[in-house]
Parts: sequence; structure tokens; C-alpha cells
Amino acid sequence: MTAARLGALDPTVFELAARRVMARCDELARITSTPGAITRVHLSPEHARVNRLAAEWMREAGLQTRQDAAGNQLGLLPAADPEAPVLMLGSHLDTVVDAGRYDGIVGVLMAIEVVRLLQRRDDDTSGVDAPARSPFDFGLEVAAFSDEEGARFGKALLGSSAVAGTWDDAWWELEDPDGTTLREAALEFGLDPGRVSEAARRPSELVGYLEAHIEQGPELHARGEPLAVVSSIASARRFQLVVEGEARHAGGTPYDMRRDALLGASEAALAVERICSTQHHIIGTVGQFEAFPGAMNIVPGEARFSLDLRGEFDGERDRVWDQISRELDDIMGRRRLRWHTREVHNAPALFCAPLLQDVVGEGIRSTLVPGSAVDGSILGSGRPEDPTTLFSPAGHDGMAIGAITDVGMLFMRNPDGVSHHPDEAVSLGDVALGIRALAEAVAHLGAEHRRT
Amino acid sequence: MTAARLGALDPTVFELAARRVMARCDELARITSTPGAITRVHLSPEHARVNRLAAEWMREAGLQTRQDAAGNQLGLLPAADPEAPVLMLGSHLDTVVDAGRYDGIVGVLMAIEVVRLLQRRDDDTSGVDAPARSPFDFGLEVAAFSDEEGARFGKALLGSSAVAGTWDDAWWELEDPDGTTLREAALEFGLDPGRVSEAARRPSELVGYLEAHIEQGPELHARGEPLAVVSSIASARRFQLVVEGEARHAGGTPYDMRRDALLGASEAALAVERICSTQHHIIGTVGQFEAFPGAMNIVPGEARFSLDLRGEFDGERDRVWDQISRELDDIMGRRRLRWHTREVHNAPALFCAPLLQDVVGEGIRSTLVPGSAVDGSILGSGRPEDPTTLFSPAGHDGMAIGAITDVGMLFMRNPDGVSHHPDEAVSLGDVALGIRALAEAVAHLGAEHRRT
Repeated sequence: MTAARLGALDPTVFELAARRVMARCDELARITSTPGAITRVHLSPEHARVNRLAAEWMREAGLQTRQDAAGNQLGLLPAADPEAPVLMLGSHLDTVVDAGRYDGIVGVLMAIEVVRLLQRRDDDTSGVDAPARSPFDFGLEVAAFSDEEGARFGKALLGSSAVAGTWDDAWWELEDPDGTTLREAALEFGLDPGRVSEAARRPSELVGYLEAHIEQGPELHARGEPLAVVSSIASARRFQLVVEGEARHAGGTPYDMRRDALLGASEAALAVERICSTQHHIIGTVGQFEAFPGAMNIVPGEARFSLDLRGEFDGERDRVWDQISRELDDIMGRRRLRWHTREVHNAPALFCAPLLQDVVGEGIRSTLVPGSAVDGSILGSGRPEDPTTLFSPAGHDGMAIGAITDVGMLFMRNPDGVSHHPDEAVSLGDVALGIRALAEAVAHLGAEHRRT
Repeated sequence: MTAARLGALDPTVFELAARRVMARCDELARITSTPGAITRVHLSPEHARVNRLAAEWMREAGLQTRQDAAGNQLGLLPAADPEAPVLMLGSHLDTVVDAGRYDGIVGVLMAIEVVRLLQRRDDDTSGVDAPARSPFDFGLEVAAFSDEEGARFGKALLGSSAVAGTWDDAWWELEDPDGTTLREAALEFGLDPGRVSEAARRPSELVGYLEAHIEQGPELHARGEPLAVVSSIASARRFQLVVEGEARHAGGTPYDMRRDALLGASEAALAVERICSTQHHIIGTVGQFEAFPGAMNIVPGEARFSLDLRGEFDGERDRVWDQISRELDDIMGRRRLRWHTREVHNAPALFCAPLLQDVVGEGIRSTLVPGSAVDGSILGSGRPEDPTTLFSPAGHDGMAIGAITDVGMLFMRNPDGVSHHPDEAVSLGDVALGIRALAEAVAHLGAEHRRT
């Protein structure tokens, strides 16, 4: 199948595919550990349920399914040559706590639709029961990663890191909030921790990795455009910080005798905002914060908080961390507090491969030429000759997968820029455009691959 | 028994009594829900255990014991006239989380020793088995209150409020951190919530209430004095505050689109410190603080924190709360956040009764006259002619009991001013002086009472 042939398809097939994706997002949203909200973390019973459902949908789309040794759900559409490498398409099915229904999930379901649209059956000669296969020199594989958010064990990208072969056995001792280790959770899920390396793929097995994702910010909406090429994924570091002071009686301890850890941590959180907000493309967030012993009438002797620090460039991000560290020294010194930190995540910026940026751009161009768009209201509002390119401050599975293969990403417009929240949204029309653009991108890559 | 007769006792009896008190403080410290630390909250299994032990010690000292309908442990030494009112002596046996071993506890154990020292048996005529009785026109009753700290249900003074007849049935619905209501906890403890009013005492039943307590600050230590008369107990209000913003993705949400509840709450905590620290005898403390949903990669949409606000005078304290409220309006308005609060405790300042201040002062004077002190090292460092008088920024059971009777308090020196912390301390010598001063105070009151 070529890009030209895909363009000749009835545009309503993309809308039908998008309707199925939206309905399935709703169906997965009901699989949650928190009734009335969406929370689905790594190696939970909900994880097992969505994997089973995704596998069913993959098989229904003609894919050969398996769950790998890290709990990732995979679906393969092989090439004619069974030894040929694969292009991986996908995203993750886990969520943050009290999440929206599209982050990650929509990308997995769109990948299934794209593979369904692109597959070929050799039914001309051998009948309708012939297995589906990739029309390209490479196979197509849908990956539903098991952990991208890191909501349970603090460490993000566990699923894609296993695939990338960058697993660190120290992670087995990470604990969730209930004190269950990653090792215990894996065993309970039915995985063998000793075999996690079997999930790792070799670079030679892969042509690349393509992912569609909602934008987790307001940029496309502000520009009035439905789709964008992603240029790079933010570099990210995550820290757990501890401030130590002295627990004292709230009534009897005068201010000048206090060493209040909570106030030191409060100043630190505000310093992060003050320092980062004046920088370009640097974002620091304190998302967790707790004071101990946590009684109304005791001056807190300890405070713990998290810092998530992202930047477009590693060096810039590290320079800002140094600045924050110096500021913490000042604050804690002035308040006679001690502070220390543990880095729990460190991922360098991931630059999307030029070829994959090109094919995603071609996919968007092919999709948004006047007359071809599914959603008439969007027509003409895009700039097909010059697809928008965005930097992603949010992390994605590509950050891990980038260790073994080229990565490309497609962003879809997010009406309010809201993500990691129940109000997270994407329109049916934009998902239809996204499915088409991703399919076009894969077809362009197929054509490029054949030429090289 | 008169003050003069008490003064004729061998001073070593006070040291022996103090040794028993210190040993029992150590024994009670081992009854905790948190091994390695001291935590003993209202209506817990540990509460039941310390009540049983206190009752045993009370009986061993000749008292008639009972546990009242609010879980307070009481021990009575009746007067010759069984209808006579009683002077209540005591404090509380509950603790904050990760507490010291003296706050409250030492006052209960000292009261037992004082009653043991003062009691009379009519053994001259009727033999050794005659029951002990008060030598005064009033009975003596030791009260070990069940809840002063409020560590479990947020509301402090539950035990003494029941005794004061100021119980509010709305409190039954208060929840502990596990979601157990006060009603459920009472039932589980074996109490009948419908009968809590039976714990209430009438003003006519009481002569007054006297309590010995460690100072929860550094003032006596700084002055080099072992004991002080307490003039008043701080007025206190406690609030639970909620800040509401919007949970957003930590990577994708630019600073100008954020409504970060944690940063608003951090500013609020610092504002409390800034406002209160410039006032005389006003102390505000943020002891609890939590952010939600509490994930590293989500901008917090909600933050909850507590405020404990104390002052020597109610009006001054309320004026400062108004100032804090206006500051919160400013902060939250600027950050596009909402805030609301629930007041969980409001106690007016309690002024100790002039007569009880006088007898406590007499008790200290009688104790610290040169030659009578137990601990020679302290001798002469006090100023017996003019006992130190201190305001108590910390709350005490007298705040509740003050609703039905006169209150008097005696403070003992606290070497580092530390309280609500494992390092809380008081010396054996100061406890011995305290026991003597409290016994002398009761004897002086007995003499006063006879005169009137």
C-alpha cells in the first residue's frame, strides 16, 4: 500500500476508526482502582484487565498478540519476510492517579486502527482466511506499554525501559505507597522478575518507533491547528527531597527557637516556581508534599516533597537544578534546617529522528490538504505546507525506546490543554485526522524504506 | 494536715515520690501504638491499658477508682463528709504522635503522690484497715483525662470537655485518619455514647482544679528557676484549611496556566509565620500539610493544611486571624485559587483563679525557702519571696474544666524547653520540688477553705 492509495480511501473510514477509538477510551476508563475516577497503575489487577482487552482488540484487528516479560501488551503484524524488522507503534495504558482517559491510551488504540487500515491479506489468491500481513518491507507492531507514568513506584517508563534493555535490577526494590516492592508486585501479577531481560529488543529488530499522543498543553489549540510534528521530548529529572528540623510543641516554642521543616519546604517550593518561571522551556513542579509528625499542635520536624524538573536541553535543566540547590542551601541554612535529596529519575532530552519527523510531517500534509480532511470545520485552518513542530515538555515512552531505535511523534490538539486530569479531552475529528496522518506517515516511511 | 505539718515531713519523702513518678513515666512510655516511639491516642487499646495501670496506682495510694463515661480515669479520696465537694488534681494520659513522656502524664502521677502524702487514716482509733480520707473539708480527686491533645480526632480536650459538661454531640461524627468516627471508637472502647453526659460534673461538686505540668518552653530554664505559678492559659483556635486549584499535567502546563494549590498553601504557611512572629504572645503553627492528588508529575489541584493559633488574649488572637484571612484572600486571589476553612477548636483564654494562683504561689514559697529544698543544687536560685508567674501558650485541660470551676496551675522547669517530642525532659529534683509545692498548695487551700 502506498501513501497515494491510502489517500484514495473513503474518508469516512478514518471517522469510523476514530469513533471506535473514542468508544474504547471510554471503555478502558471504566477499568480503574478508584470508582468514579480513573487510576490504573503498573502491575495492578486493572493493568491485567486492560491488557486482556487490548489483546482482544489487537487480535480482532489481525495482530498476533503476546504479553512480554515486563507486562507490556504487544500485537504483531509481520512482514512477508518473518525475519524483517518491525516498526513499533504505540503508547501506554497505565495512568496517573485520578487521570484523564486519553493520555497514552488513545495512542495505543490509534495504532491498532492504523495497523488495521494498512494491513494486507493475500486474499486475491489464497482465500479470505490468509493471515494479515504488513504491506511494507518491515512488520508493524503495536506496543501497549505497562508503565509510563510511574504513578505506583515513583520510577517512570518501567515498561518501555524493559523493552529498551535499560532495566536496572535495583528497581525491583522500589516500593509503592503500601510498601509493596516492584518485585513482589511483579510476582503477584504473574511475571518472573528473573526473566525481565527477555522483554528487551535489539536495535536490529526495529525500524523505529512512532507514537500519537494528545498534546498536554494548549499550544495547538491556541494556534487553531489539529496536529503537530514533535521535535523532541523534554529532558526530565525527578527528586525526592527531605528537610529536617526539629519537632517542637506548637504553643511553647517561640519563633526564634523553631526549626520548622514545613516552612523551609514551603519556601523551597516557592523558590522552584520563582527560578523556573523566569527560564525558557524549563518547568519545575512540586507535586508531593507532606509534613511530619503531622499533628496540628506540633512544629513539623520533617517535611518531604518531590521535584519534577524538565527542560528542552539537558545542560540548561542541570544548570537550573544547580541554581535550585544553591537556593535550598540558603533557605535551609537561614532556618537552621538540613536538607538532602535522592534522584529517582533522570532522562536526557530525546530528539526525534529527522526521517521520522519528515514522515510525520508528510502524514500531516497529506491529511490536511483541502478536500481530504474528515472534519470539514478544520479544513483550511491547518497550514499543510508547513506542519507545526512542537517540543514536548511532557515525557513519553519514546524517551526510553530512543535508546535502541529512532523515535517519531505526532501530537493532537487538546482543547483546554488539560492533561493528567479527568477533564483531559481530544475531539473525535482530531483523532480521525490523527489516525489518517499516522497511517500516511507509516506509508511514507514504507516508501522511503523501500527506496533505501 | 496543715501546711506547717507538711513542712515537718522528712524532705526525702518528696524525692522518693518523685522517683516513683519518674519510673512510672518510663513505664507508661512503653505503652504506645508505635514501637520505638510514644503515641497514645484517645480510645485506643493503649488508652485502655494506661487507664488500668493508673487505676491500679490510684488504688495502691488509697483512692476509690472509676472510669467515667468519657474514658477519663478517676480516683477519689473522699472527705469525712461524703457530700463535700472535691478539689480535682490531675492532667491527661494521652499523647501527641511521637511524643515525650512527661506532658500531661507527670501531672497525673504527681497528683497521685500528693494525695498519698496528704491523706489521713483514722487509724488512731479504729485500726489500720480504716479507709484513707481527705484531711480537708473537701475531698481530693485525681483525674487522668482521656484526651487533651486531640491527636486522633483533631478536636482537643475531649475528656475534660465531657467532665465540664460542654460536650457537643456533633463531635461523635469526627473521624480519625483511618475514617473511624469518634462514635465508633467509643463503642469499640466499651463506652456508651448515649451516656457521655454522665461524665459531666456540676460546679457545686468541685472546689477547684489544680494541675502540675512541665513548662513547654524555655522560660524557667532561662531564668534558672524550678517552678512557676501559671497566670493564664492561651486562647486557642484551630482550623483545617483547604486550597483548591486545578490538577494539571506537570510537563504540559505553562506557569501562567497553572492554578497550583500547593504553592498557594506554601505562601499561606509562610504568611502565618510572618504575621504572627511580629506580634507579642501570638503563635501560629502549620503542623499538617498535604497536596493532592500527590503525584510527582501533576500540578496539585488541592492542598490541605492546619493552623493552630494561640494568644494570651482572645481579642488579639481574633484580630490576627482576621489579618491572616485577608492575607489568604490576597494570595489565593492572585493565584486564581479558592480557599475555605473549618474551625475545629475554639477555646477562650483561661485566667487562673486569683485564690488558686495565691495558693500555688504559697506552695512554691514554702518549698523553696532555703534549707527545705530537696535538690541542694537548686537552693537559693529560686526567689521564694516572689514566685515567677508565667503565661502558658500551650493548652491544658484547665481550659475545659474552667467552664465549671476555678483553675490553678504549677509549671516545672523544662531543661531545653522541648515538648511534644521524644527529647522532652524534666529533672527528678524539679519533680520532687513540684510534688512538694503542689502538696503545700493544696494544704494552703485547705486552710483557706476552713477559714471561709
